[in-house]
Amino acid sequence: MKLNKNHKILIVGLGLLGGSYARALTKHGYSVSAITRDQSSIDYALEQGMIQKGAAFVDEALCAEADIVIFALYPHVFVEWIRENQRYLKAGAILTDVTGVKSCVVEQIHGMLRSDLEFIAAHPMAGRERSGVENSDDSIFRGANYVVTPTSVNTPDAIELCEDLGWKLGFARVSRLSPEEHDEIIAFVSQLTHCIAISLMTCQPTEQPLEDYTGDSFRDLTRIARMNDEMWSELFLLNKDALLEQMSLFQDELSKLKILLREGNREGLRDMMRKSTARRALFDKKI
Amino acid sequence: MKLNKNHKILIVGLGLLGGSYARALTKHGYSVSAITRDQSSIDYALEQGMIQKGAAFVDEALCAEADIVIFALYPHVFVEWIRENQRYLKAGAILTDVTGVKSCVVEQIHGMLRSDLEFIAAHPMAGRERSGVENSDDSIFRGANYVVTPTSVNTPDAIELCEDLGWKLGFARVSRLSPEEHDEIIAFVSQLTHCIAISLMTCQPTEQPLEDYTGDSFRDLTRIARMNDEMWSELFLLNKDALLEQMSLFQDELSKLKILLREGNREGLRDMMRKSTARRALFDKKI
Repeated sequence: MKLNKNHKILIVGLGLLGGSYARALTKHGYSVSAITRDQSSIDYALEQGMIQKGAAFVDEALCAEADIVIFALYPHVFVEWIRENQRYLKAGAILTDVTGVKSCVVEQIHGMLRSDLEFIAAHPMAGRERSGVENSDDSIFRGANYVVTPTSVNTPDAIELCEDLGWKLGFARVSRLSPEEHDEIIAFVSQLTHCIAISLMTCQPTEQPLEDYTGDSFRDLTRIARMNDEMWSELFLLNKDALLEQMSLFQDELSKLKILLREGNREGLRDMMRKSTARRALFDKKI
Repeated sequence: MKLNKNHKILIVGLGLLGGSYARALTKHGYSVSAITRDQSSIDYALEQGMIQKGAAFVDEALCAEADIVIFALYPHVFVEWIRENQRYLKAGAILTDVTGVKSCVVEQIHGMLRSDLEFIAAHPMAGRERSGVENSDDSIFRGANYVVTPTSVNTPDAIELCEDLGWKLGFARVSRLSPEEHDEIIAFVSQLTHCIAISLMTCQPTEQPLEDYTGDSFRDLTRIARMNDEMWSELFLLNKDALLEQMSLFQDELSKLKILLREGNREGLRDMMRKSTARRALFDKKI
């Protein structure tokens, strides 16, 4: 099943990601409504023409008419929302999300979801260091990756619809992983990198004002050090074991480099650099 | 003393940085010539109008007329060049460089320089992950930092001239550090960040093709993982002690974060994230 113009789409949580989804889907001519906490976000989205309808409360009519419901909430808020409000949703509706960790969320939702609803989890791997609907921008999906994490309870129809959503949003690549594989990879490519950025930023290597002497490399490695601590602490803790494992893996690798340096092993250093240079070429964004 | 249009400027080493200097200075109407190894680089720079004259050998006439000589070479090549060719330089000429490590280079040059020449060291903190004169681009200096590292043997005139060069090149900030302070800071903001990028890139956290599941954070942290191994291994080894120290400092900080995570200390994690967020704001490029 593909997304079609008769589908009514409801976005729950109109922040940076929810807002960017709304922009992209509205541009493509889909019917998009939103429910979020702050009236000001709804007002902004209506003014900008990003949504057709919206409410700053759980509007039963919006819930009852939606064929596709996209949750762009913090993990625990998402789980709570389903627990309290799933009774308002239309039978047969397909639910998806944007949550950055999967195993625990997918398990909790599947454990309590009404049998006439289907939840198919997804992770749009795009973001910004600023949050809020005012910073939403659907160009963040361009060149980016979108991952669907189905389990055995999902139907081929829902999986296809969710993948089609990823393409319609403008992602460059849409793939599938199990929730567990997703969490392992995300611990490395996203959570570990945030841990590194935080640690670089909280180190005090000198009394000098570092900002006067820095180059682009330090700026690049710490761009993500400006973060939403409420959201990221929750994501870290929900994926604690995988993240601890990836941190150890990275620490071991950095220690290898340190030993080569201490030994003055120039060929060993160059070898690591050449390997890193060759591998990095795979990661260029294809826009 | 400020740079003036009567000064004849010679750039030795026409790669990414030397080429970017040539572009910037020629645009401002200065008389720029170059000496470099490859004739093809000279041909390219002449065609592009980046230089007025050039030679792929140590051209005695170019050396003899230069008032200001800028060395954009690998550290050991720079030291060798001075040893072999300083005899061709004009009495009273001022020499500067772009080398990414300072203490050892400054000491070696001062130890052998003719007494009628003056070397004032500088580090333009700008670069690109691609090398060569064809990739040169003076816009890399915009918003960037330029550091002059004088010692007690330098004259106020030469320091002023070197600082003026930084401003004329278009840097956003020109500052002074001792060579030792410079090397300590550079170990942290530049060399450590390269070590991190290499280690992230050479880790093998999963069998999956990571590039299909990555977001911008991983791309940002590894942009510099594509590097010139010959140059960087030399820079690392010339600044080994400072770099080892900064690696340890970072490893300790990352371990602190890991302990907070292992303990499930959410407030501790949020505290580090808030500190990192607040500090990062200082590092935005002011363009």
